[in-house]
Amino acid sequence: MKNLLRQILAVFVVLIFLNQVLDAQKDFGFKPAASNIQGSDFPKISLDNSVYVRLMAREAMKVQVQGGDGLCPKPMDLVKDTAGNWNAIIPSAGPGFHYYWFIVDGVRVNDPGSDTYHGYGRPTSGIEIPVAGEDFFHAKNVPHGDVREHWYYSDITGRWRRAFVYTPPDYDKNPKKKYPVLYLLHGAGENERGWSLQGHMSFILDNLIAEKKAVPMIVVMDNGYATAKNAAAATSGFSMRDMTKMAETLEQVYIKEIIPNIDLSYRTIPKRESRAMAGLSMGGMQTMLIGMNHLELFSWYGFFSGAILGGIMDDPKNAFNGAFADAKAFNEKVKLMWFGAGSGETQFVKMVDDTKKKLADLGIKSTSYISQGTFHEWHTWRRHLNEFAPLLFNR
Amino acid sequence: MKNLLRQILAVFVVLIFLNQVLDAQKDFGFKPAASNIQGSDFPKISLDNSVYVRLMAREAMKVQVQGGDGLCPKPMDLVKDTAGNWNAIIPSAGPGFHYYWFIVDGVRVNDPGSDTYHGYGRPTSGIEIPVAGEDFFHAKNVPHGDVREHWYYSDITGRWRRAFVYTPPDYDKNPKKKYPVLYLLHGAGENERGWSLQGHMSFILDNLIAEKKAVPMIVVMDNGYATAKNAAAATSGFSMRDMTKMAETLEQVYIKEIIPNIDLSYRTIPKRESRAMAGLSMGGMQTMLIGMNHLELFSWYGFFSGAILGGIMDDPKNAFNGAFADAKAFNEKVKLMWFGAGSGETQFVKMVDDTKKKLADLGIKSTSYISQGTFHEWHTWRRHLNEFAPLLFNR
Repeated sequence: MKNLLRQILAVFVVLIFLNQVLDAQKDFGFKPAASNIQGSDFPKISLDNSVYVRLMAREAMKVQVQGGDGLCPKPMDLVKDTAGNWNAIIPSAGPGFHYYWFIVDGVRVNDPGSDTYHGYGRPTSGIEIPVAGEDFFHAKNVPHGDVREHWYYSDITGRWRRAFVYTPPDYDKNPKKKYPVLYLLHGAGENERGWSLQGHMSFILDNLIAEKKAVPMIVVMDNGYATAKNAAAATSGFSMRDMTKMAETLEQVYIKEIIPNIDLSYRTIPKRESRAMAGLSMGGMQTMLIGMNHLELFSWYGFFSGAILGGIMDDPKNAFNGAFADAKAFNEKVKLMWFGAGSGETQFVKMVDDTKKKLADLGIKSTSYISQGTFHEWHTWRRHLNEFAPLLFNR
Repeated sequence: MKNLLRQILAVFVVLIFLNQVLDAQKDFGFKPAASNIQGSDFPKISLDNSVYVRLMAREAMKVQVQGGDGLCPKPMDLVKDTAGNWNAIIPSAGPGFHYYWFIVDGVRVNDPGSDTYHGYGRPTSGIEIPVAGEDFFHAKNVPHGDVREHWYYSDITGRWRRAFVYTPPDYDKNPKKKYPVLYLLHGAGENERGWSLQGHMSFILDNLIAEKKAVPMIVVMDNGYATAKNAAAATSGFSMRDMTKMAETLEQVYIKEIIPNIDLSYRTIPKRESRAMAGLSMGGMQTMLIGMNHLELFSWYGFFSGAILGGIMDDPKNAFNGAFADAKAFNEKVKLMWFGAGSGETQFVKMVDDTKKKLADLGIKSTSYISQGTFHEWHTWRRHLNEFAPLLFNR
């Protein structure tokens, strides 16, 4: 009897939910997300950017949804309807791209309605929430550069590695022109495709170049993981130890393999004045660890929600073989130290402030920017790139 | 009591299974697949190419694995161990790339240990089985071309479309040289990334060009789906009706948008003698539907497990506005009609034979090739490309 009551109650809840959903769809203009795979009705997005997710799972006992900080950082229960679909409406999501996933009877799975993107060390569903009044990251009717998949053999790691290389719109039309290069690094658990796929970097650069807000440049996006061929198996670990160890190998790969290969394969200006390095999160830390040790290679630096962790700035005067010790020399040599975060990721805002202050105390100039209403997610970093790229290479 | 017995029996089965698995791992040299995402131990492949799959799903009631014809075309049950891992060993898999997925309590999900590839109209796990004695599709120490992500606006479909464009290794070094172009089409449920990702087309071409078995050429891989902007919503349907309707729009996109855009953006030889078209499965059908109507644009044709369906060759003499009616004229104009299949996909072998015979009856020359021991899967089409490309452009 208790069971029967519970079942009736459950059906009742579902019916109420379904009615709400139907009303909601009508009233709030739910439409399939632009990021859905072809022909998929779900997920849907409302006028206030609530996200209606659905998964068909007739035999499942429990289904939840979870995602990035601007979407649904804590697991949220879905409710099963009589057809076997599980449904939930995530209230007003933050702007731009979010990773997300379902948890079906304890197993983390992707949404068949969305494409996957390499995040959290594995292919993970993603959704694009419209951003009112912002189109700097959209494909527009301007000349477009190509993003090239570029393979090279890395002797240090004993593997073929893949870089994605953005060549600006006029690259093929001016076969003698040489270009400055921005090395752009992804975050932990992501890969070399992140900046072009999740980040829309090619559209951002195309638009900036078309508006003459940025100089035409080559952008190199390589993989942020590197393990020496004789070392223990590669990890995609997030720990400080993993990251520092990896940065050491990655430093060698950058200095001895990536940069020489790019200078050989593309029409670069192979000088420090024409080379920039920037990265997001783990990539920001790598930019610090690699870049500050090689002022002879780079002049422009960007730290996008940079993970300045693990005490690497505890003793700034002696950090990086004393790179910051002589402020005058540093300020002459380094054209830009740019720090960014999103207002919703408070610990990174604090890291930006702390690092800027430590540098200022030594007399070192830096710039910062906080993206309003965004989190430790890609829309923050799209805005960072859009703010950072125009400052490069003495436009 | 009956339940208890059943539980004891279940534990017993698991223990036997686990022992077998442990023995199997030791005896048959199971190692993580090369296609695994970084740091993932499973799936594993044995010396005889059996595949050991595992999924952690403590609360699931039933888990199955299923995949491509050369791997596991029918669902196979996994067995749960005491740790909550579900395990199965798929006996000796066929060579090369296979799509696969798990079914967890009725929900089709991807393997977190593998990368995803666009197949079956959605991101789907894939595994690479080693192929003894064959390395034509591997990255080798030869000059490498780039595969470029190339965006353009399509007025016919009202959308931004993306093509992947392979430029051969010497493309940037010879800024005045012009190249012939192969338009290479993917299959149903796949997308424009298929040929470079699943197909390894860039490595195949790099190797052929390095050995001087193929002339340097540009290869264009566009999306095989197109819906006119005013038509009903796009589908990724597999039905004959869907395909034919789509091919009509796609024909317009090729003729009016893709080919002119490629001829404008890259250093092509914009003549029919220097243009080839080939596709796999649905792409083979599209090559027939579009290509035979445009002998003024192409001279070389490849049908890789081409879906020559729906009666399009029922009346060959009158098909395609009588393209085949004058055999002498056709044979002079068309340099290559190449048909391929895999020995394991018998209906496509039959389609190759039937089509060749129908053409021969009209006096039209054609060539065919059967890939031994492969199915309606990517390794068949990798071999097809490797056989087909050397025949192109009067090497």
